[in-house]
Amino acid sequence: MTFNLFIEGTSGNARAGLFATPRGAVRTPCFMPVGTKATVKAITPRDLREMGAQIILSNTFHLHLRPGEGVIERLGELHGFMRYDGPILTDSGGFQVFSLAELRTITEKGVTFKSPLDGAACFISPEISMKVQKALGANIVMAFDECPSVGMEGAVLEESTARTLRWLERCLTIQLKPHQCMFPIVQGGMDAAKRVASARATVATAPDSVGFAVGGLAVGEERSMTYRMLEISVSELPTDRPRYMMGIGTPEDLIWAVDRGVDMFDCVLPTRNARNARVFDPAGGLNLRNAKFREDPAPIMEGCDCHTCREGFSRGYLHHLHRSGEILGGILASIHNLRYLLRQCEEMRDAIIAGRWEDYKSAFFAAFPKASPDPTRV
Amino acid sequence: MTFNLFIEGTSGNARAGLFATPRGAVRTPCFMPVGTKATVKAITPRDLREMGAQIILSNTFHLHLRPGEGVIERLGELHGFMRYDGPILTDSGGFQVFSLAELRTITEKGVTFKSPLDGAACFISPEISMKVQKALGANIVMAFDECPSVGMEGAVLEESTARTLRWLERCLTIQLKPHQCMFPIVQGGMDAAKRVASARATVATAPDSVGFAVGGLAVGEERSMTYRMLEISVSELPTDRPRYMMGIGTPEDLIWAVDRGVDMFDCVLPTRNARNARVFDPAGGLNLRNAKFREDPAPIMEGCDCHTCREGFSRGYLHHLHRSGEILGGILASIHNLRYLLRQCEEMRDAIIAGRWEDYKSAFFAAFPKASPDPTRV
Repeated sequence: MTFNLFIEGTSGNARAGLFATPRGAVRTPCFMPVGTKATVKAITPRDLREMGAQIILSNTFHLHLRPGEGVIERLGELHGFMRYDGPILTDSGGFQVFSLAELRTITEKGVTFKSPLDGAACFISPEISMKVQKALGANIVMAFDECPSVGMEGAVLEESTARTLRWLERCLTIQLKPHQCMFPIVQGGMDAAKRVASARATVATAPDSVGFAVGGLAVGEERSMTYRMLEISVSELPTDRPRYMMGIGTPEDLIWAVDRGVDMFDCVLPTRNARNARVFDPAGGLNLRNAKFREDPAPIMEGCDCHTCREGFSRGYLHHLHRSGEILGGILASIHNLRYLLRQCEEMRDAIIAGRWEDYKSAFFAAFPKASPDPTRV
Repeated sequence: MTFNLFIEGTSGNARAGLFATPRGAVRTPCFMPVGTKATVKAITPRDLREMGAQIILSNTFHLHLRPGEGVIERLGELHGFMRYDGPILTDSGGFQVFSLAELRTITEKGVTFKSPLDGAACFISPEISMKVQKALGANIVMAFDECPSVGMEGAVLEESTARTLRWLERCLTIQLKPHQCMFPIVQGGMDAAKRVASARATVATAPDSVGFAVGGLAVGEERSMTYRMLEISVSELPTDRPRYMMGIGTPEDLIWAVDRGVDMFDCVLPTRNARNARVFDPAGGLNLRNAKFREDPAPIMEGCDCHTCREGFSRGYLHHLHRSGEILGGILASIHNLRYLLRQCEEMRDAIIAGRWEDYKSAFFAAFPKASPDPTRV
């Protein structure tokens, strides 16, 4: 089994590719719906298949705390537990330990923190994260890294970045199951030199990795910083492996990332926004709670091929569901938002292969006059 | 278009029938999933079709307050608004005015109450309820009645029951749309003589009704009282029209009601229970939050043909979803509970037509040793 990227088309830095996993091939660019607690919120596995999801993401930190990786492993690993047949990726828990847990203490050994569920003292190390992910049984597991806060700099950032590399070496000592592989994560904070150093050292430490991730971005910094750091990080990564930018995004984020050579992304935004009545459209999105939609007979977006738009659910009906706090409002909006990003990935891929990437980008931003300009190329 | 019941089989009082509506035939006995606010909670119209729902119920009181019947009428009446193709029944709002609204004042003219949404003063009369239901466009609309509280008796109950009859006469003055018909509602509280009088007067007042409902039961009284009053009410209704018992129920309620000649029922219980992790099975149900299900690989019920059980979602996974407050837990449990009652209706129907009703009842209660005995035949 090879996971390596077979490049089917390029246009500048933008790439269209294909890589194999033990659960089927993944075509890139590829957005991964997020199923933090072993469920993409409000969405059934059948919905995921029908909307064209290729690979989904689930989360080590949350599943380790509840129900525990042992339960999931005994109930058929994540695939059997969730009844999801396709490829699955698990985050390592690194990001959540740093963003969610209270009272964390970082030592060389690992991170001690208070469980957000019950306040109990917990400990995660690179080895524990790998063993948890091994039990969960996802096809792509992520190295356990330290995600520096936005303001971190100087010697503290230097040490944090170096620690992520030392932790990567320890992650590599844990043998995974035959259907699993690991992606290391490039860090380096908001410091160009440290980004370059981290990327080079990551590739040198784990040269056989089937893919590489760029972490520590889209965590609160300016977008121009995000994309400058992304560009620097990606430029040091091998061209024949998938590159995964963690934690984006919006439709325009996907364009900017692909334009810089990124193949994979994930974000809770499409489903979280959907539950708050915010849905994507080419002009920058709608808030369905807005009173102007009360009697609007149109679907969210004319011509959209998602279940919600195809079945003719109107903005007026969705407005009513969201105003009334009805679960179906979140379900139908989530289906739309996820399909929107998945379709955009299909369109980006087609455009790259057909040599129309620059035209596609122009058309995308022409339809969306309120979009921010490219964050680093203004 | 005839709505009248074509009887396909009887066994004692139990009946299997068929009646036509402008949106398709309905086979009885028939459980109606409840979609109070123009959505069966957490369930898509496609799910409803797939689980074999024949007709659903929605609610005049809630939809009158939000979004308003005008919005719904202009967005294609309830069928277009919800994107549900099958027959729909609307409750008249009578029950909700009496059970939910605060500060209500009943006069001969109608009921004044405070909106539970914003505290505004509202007024519903028989004529207003009919006009609201006419705008909503359901195929079966219900007469606007007064639902007496459990303890009401004597002259107060006498007057309440008489008022429901006078209101029925006023409901009959409102001409509905061609695809609509109205069911009157028998009341009479917990008083046998008043039940008989109400049923007789209802039939005399609206002899051409295509169906009759029995209301004011399952509102907090003892079950033996419920079924005594039901039996008395049904015995006075024409045998060639559907009889609808409002507000039940549980799997055993359906058996007891069918055994007394009831054809239709509705209840929020299957979906409300499902959202609280309580699911039906032949032995009386499970609470999926129970710790003993944490690692249980079995589906909710072996052999169940609902989407949730067929797709192999385990009790362990559902336990995790409910413990984690994940929406998918409520979705999957709701699909199971609704299909459970719909399938039970199909089985009851087959048993009646095949002359196996008594055997079916015996087998049902043999599998469910903790069930209460028949409420009036102990």
